[in-house]
Amino acid sequence: MIAVVALNPALDVTHHVDGVDWAGVNRPARVRAVPGGKGLNVARTLHALGAEVLLLGLAGGPTGTAIRAGLAANGVPAAFTEIAADTRRTFVVVDTRGGEVAAFYEPGEAVTADELGRFVAAYGEALPRCAAVVLSGSLPPGLPAGTYADLTALATAAGIPVVLDTSGEALLRGAAAGPAIVKPNLTELAAVTQLTPAASLPPARGLAAASGHRLRWPDDRAGVLAAARWLRGLGPRAVVVTLGADGLLAVTGDGTWHAAGEPVAGNPTGAGDAVAAGLANALTQRQSWPERLRHAAALGSATTAATVAGEFATADYQRALASVRVCQLEGPR
Amino acid sequence: MIAVVALNPALDVTHHVDGVDWAGVNRPARVRAVPGGKGLNVARTLHALGAEVLLLGLAGGPTGTAIRAGLAANGVPAAFTEIAADTRRTFVVVDTRGGEVAAFYEPGEAVTADELGRFVAAYGEALPRCAAVVLSGSLPPGLPAGTYADLTALATAAGIPVVLDTSGEALLRGAAAGPAIVKPNLTELAAVTQLTPAASLPPARGLAAASGHRLRWPDDRAGVLAAARWLRGLGPRAVVVTLGADGLLAVTGDGTWHAAGEPVAGNPTGAGDAVAAGLANALTQRQSWPERLRHAAALGSATTAATVAGEFATADYQRALASVRVCQLEGPR
Repeated sequence: MIAVVALNPALDVTHHVDGVDWAGVNRPARVRAVPGGKGLNVARTLHALGAEVLLLGLAGGPTGTAIRAGLAANGVPAAFTEIAADTRRTFVVVDTRGGEVAAFYEPGEAVTADELGRFVAAYGEALPRCAAVVLSGSLPPGLPAGTYADLTALATAAGIPVVLDTSGEALLRGAAAGPAIVKPNLTELAAVTQLTPAASLPPARGLAAASGHRLRWPDDRAGVLAAARWLRGLGPRAVVVTLGADGLLAVTGDGTWHAAGEPVAGNPTGAGDAVAAGLANALTQRQSWPERLRHAAALGSATTAATVAGEFATADYQRALASVRVCQLEGPR
Repeated sequence: MIAVVALNPALDVTHHVDGVDWAGVNRPARVRAVPGGKGLNVARTLHALGAEVLLLGLAGGPTGTAIRAGLAANGVPAAFTEIAADTRRTFVVVDTRGGEVAAFYEPGEAVTADELGRFVAAYGEALPRCAAVVLSGSLPPGLPAGTYADLTALATAAGIPVVLDTSGEALLRGAAAGPAIVKPNLTELAAVTQLTPAASLPPARGLAAASGHRLRWPDDRAGVLAAARWLRGLGPRAVVVTLGADGLLAVTGDGTWHAAGEPVAGNPTGAGDAVAAGLANALTQRQSWPERLRHAAALGSATTAATVAGEFATADYQRALASVRVCQLEGPR
């Protein structure tokens, strides 16, 4: 079983309006409310791949109930720890005439230490049945930045590989706890180099700063590689950087690879979550790095081609799988 | 007890954003989710006035649960009939820098005939305890336009006065069922004159058509009076037209009055609902028309001065009460 942890899920509400009046009253022609957030996308992708998955996380109030009901309707097994606060919403308005999209992400209410304690107990109970763990998304207000580090340490102590997909301080601290894979995108990778790791770990001297805290692929291959190597030096066994339409870069103990398929038109929302799902899935199947990356990159492409985050068409996946080129950039280091 | 019927309530979600990107991602600084819809505003106003009130209506799904919880937190007694569909939301985005406000009103999902039947049974059970009934707001999809007419007929047959505040075909048919008061605004009054009443009732020949289906006060007093008189001729004992900042016009069997307070700065959302609440409240206290109108107009003003629909400050109400001028335009006809 693969456990996917979603500590900050959301109910994603989308309004489709034919010609939005951004300063007036609108009556949406179509309304969609589905469970959302990165962890939920990961779990849906794993479920669609036929993997045994269990979604763990925090949910509360009527919006938490809506999330549970939506996942049950999709057949995704979930066991959320109940919290007092109402789970947050995201609200997206799509102008089906003009094409504009406005998004409003609620921050969510604070989670208490007691609620986190109950979650950690549930997580600890689930671990013995897990072949891998995915920790995905932002932390809700109220939780310490070391929360993912603690969850990573619990899993790795039990010999269970962790895929960590988060950003900022939570990524920095989580990386130091020794996950199997951390999976930042270029923006997250550049941002984490600007943070100061614990005194016992190497600081990211000069990384990304030269390019104004931004990293670009393929214009600044050396900078991206240096940042990924530095991040790997903090503790994770591998760093997989999602490069958008340019695929994936994996810096591992076995070597460094770049994997990319044909460019795909569509909606890239959730493509990174599909990559995280693909990596976790591959970890449980003991595939080699080139196989893992081909699988993960193809899932990212197929998800981009689909209209809804966390969904993909099998035909798109099969087509992408055939088109992905995996190049080894460096051998083991 | 006053029963307030809200067949199409909503969870009103408001996002406050400091400088909205209408084509990008926003993180609201403040989020507010409260039970909303016209009937709920009426019930809150009556509750604040100290009247014994019972809110009846339809609610379902997690959003229905959120509405029930919000009303319970406000201490407003409610007994909603459970429906299968999730209750609708409204989304309002307020740009606290630029001042723009964009609103998105979900239509709601269809209500079944069986669910309406269960509601009517609950309504019938509550009627013997009622001194007045307020029927307020739009009908949800799936309900016949004659629904308010049926509910009005049940109450009037039991000798209970009804205040009907709706629009379009539901107003036209409801008016013919003999409520004590119908309470359109100018837009609703002009629109209803364009509909064709049942063959036994007088058609609105030429009304509002002269002004292009619009009615204005005080520019077109004669047109507004003629339309209100025609509407009264369909069946209601009185027509009270809300004129925005210009107050109220009441066409009754006892005479015709105009009531208006000092102009008030603020948010007019919900002011009409406060007027409906004031009229129902006054009906149960057997006040004269001038007293009723003074009370209702003052509630409308005080609600405009408040920031939240359905709320008002007692000091604003007392101040408005002293400032309202009630003029009799015509004697009994």
